[in-house]
Amino acid sequence: MVSVGNRNMFALVEEDLKEMTQNLKRLVGAKHPVLYAAAEYLFDAGGKRIRPAIVLLAARATQAGNPTERHRRLAEITEMIHTAALVHDDVIDTAEVRRGIATVNGHFGNRVAVLAGDFLFAQSSLYLARLGSLEVVELLSIVIADFAEGEILQNLSQFDARLTFDTYIDKSFYKTASLMAGSSRAAAVLSGSPVEVCNGLYDYGKHLGIAFQVVDDLLDFTGSTESLGKPAGSDLQQGNLTAPVLYALEEIPYLAEFIDRQFSTEGDLEKALQLVHTTHGIERSRELARTHARQAVQSLDVLPSSPARQALINLADYVLERVY
Amino acid sequence: MVSVGNRNMFALVEEDLKEMTQNLKRLVGAKHPVLYAAAEYLFDAGGKRIRPAIVLLAARATQAGNPTERHRRLAEITEMIHTAALVHDDVIDTAEVRRGIATVNGHFGNRVAVLAGDFLFAQSSLYLARLGSLEVVELLSIVIADFAEGEILQNLSQFDARLTFDTYIDKSFYKTASLMAGSSRAAAVLSGSPVEVCNGLYDYGKHLGIAFQVVDDLLDFTGSTESLGKPAGSDLQQGNLTAPVLYALEEIPYLAEFIDRQFSTEGDLEKALQLVHTTHGIERSRELARTHARQAVQSLDVLPSSPARQALINLADYVLERVY
Repeated sequence: MVSVGNRNMFALVEEDLKEMTQNLKRLVGAKHPVLYAAAEYLFDAGGKRIRPAIVLLAARATQAGNPTERHRRLAEITEMIHTAALVHDDVIDTAEVRRGIATVNGHFGNRVAVLAGDFLFAQSSLYLARLGSLEVVELLSIVIADFAEGEILQNLSQFDARLTFDTYIDKSFYKTASLMAGSSRAAAVLSGSPVEVCNGLYDYGKHLGIAFQVVDDLLDFTGSTESLGKPAGSDLQQGNLTAPVLYALEEIPYLAEFIDRQFSTEGDLEKALQLVHTTHGIERSRELARTHARQAVQSLDVLPSSPARQALINLADYVLERVY
Repeated sequence: MVSVGNRNMFALVEEDLKEMTQNLKRLVGAKHPVLYAAAEYLFDAGGKRIRPAIVLLAARATQAGNPTERHRRLAEITEMIHTAALVHDDVIDTAEVRRGIATVNGHFGNRVAVLAGDFLFAQSSLYLARLGSLEVVELLSIVIADFAEGEILQNLSQFDARLTFDTYIDKSFYKTASLMAGSSRAAAVLSGSPVEVCNGLYDYGKHLGIAFQVVDDLLDFTGSTESLGKPAGSDLQQGNLTAPVLYALEEIPYLAEFIDRQFSTEGDLEKALQLVHTTHGIERSRELARTHARQAVQSLDVLPSSPARQALINLADYVLERVY
């Protein structure tokens, strides 16, 4: 359960989220004993279900009353796409651990991981088509294409100290913000909202997603191995250059040498991490996240006041709280 | 180039297929140096381009004149989905060789193979959405879901001598016939054909696909390693039980012992292959392929005579010629 102070931010949609988790386990698990294990594992593994929560809250905020059946399907699709992308990501990055527990490939091997990811992508395509809105199909198809794009960009720019800030933001958009933007807009489309409301919700998801990714990247520098569920400094070690190190490079260009030699000399990684902490990289990254969270909240001005709109605002605060 | 006797069966659409191959290489290759290599490799690796040829011929057979731009996009989508499925299949089956050359995972590793497959699936979803027909989106989304289904069925039934013939046919449908059926019908849908023509083209693709898969399964027993581009008997060795062995089990039930112990005793596989050849399994499988090819041709009765319809009929003959 995600809470801000004592409030449960997702209280409005908690029941819907529980139902969704059961549906997803049933859907995936029914096919195969191994997929059953993978499903139990995937949909119970401490996932915060932020993406479907955004969809369900956006549904409530854009229309009076409960989310429709189509909104519920959209929430499931969103979580399926997210999970499929995670599973394949972990194969591509050969990651053995995520959120402190073994990944699907780590636990069940590459075969099952590829299969489970394909199954989830395929089911999400099918569910999407059955929503009966070409606009929503196109919105979410772009998201799936953006994932592949983001993964390619990340692979291309590994250990490349000349990576520009724009490319970093693009990568963050493709990897994280595109799904939040597309699915948040899709919720408004399904509500039959006017175009400025649809645009507002797209911008909300986009800026929230970028803030979310920047915070995630920050935590790799400031979090403990225990709180991260993976070794701190993992991103840097794998040559995935993020906001703190890109800012640090502006202040101390010789940091590039460590990156160029891929931290191959004993103690390189530790030295590089320390160097980043001597710069304003961490603080400037926090400010970047704050700016995007603020833009996300402003994008909601197109909506009338409601408990659901307030919950979406609280979500932006929660994203920032993670780094303080 | 695929030919029946001296005729080039795809002559009608040869230019379209060449253009398609160039488009696909450009589309995939533009993103990443490694994907460029993979694209050159994938779209030049002796692929027979039967699936896009069916789409382009079905387009011509269901309307007067050249395929439309949407038909051409559909042909590309069909080849992208097929290629994506192959690439992930080879990761799941840990296959190192296909059509006599190294697979993408064998050549570039699992990372690139998963990435290339995801990229192709994602692009095909996006292109599909942009065709602007919900009916076509749903038809092809079912195909993508069927691939995952087929892969799961195959994994579930490995080395299971109690596999029923119905399940074998289902698996063949999911793995091969679903794409041919769905894309052939989609071509008719894009032509604005009446429903009985759409149904006829679906049935054509379905029966052609099953015939095609049965013939492929037969060749694993009758072909040479050289002609197959992979070791003969590979399917059986991997516990993938197909028509010849299922028929053989009806005549000599003790064949199940070899399968149950997964050919673990020296000489088991060779013995099992010989045993299959002593039964009517090969001949009955040929008859099964013939029956489906005949049904495919009959399904085309809904279409008026035309060179394109004749080419589709020739394609069914060609499928059978491969085993004589």
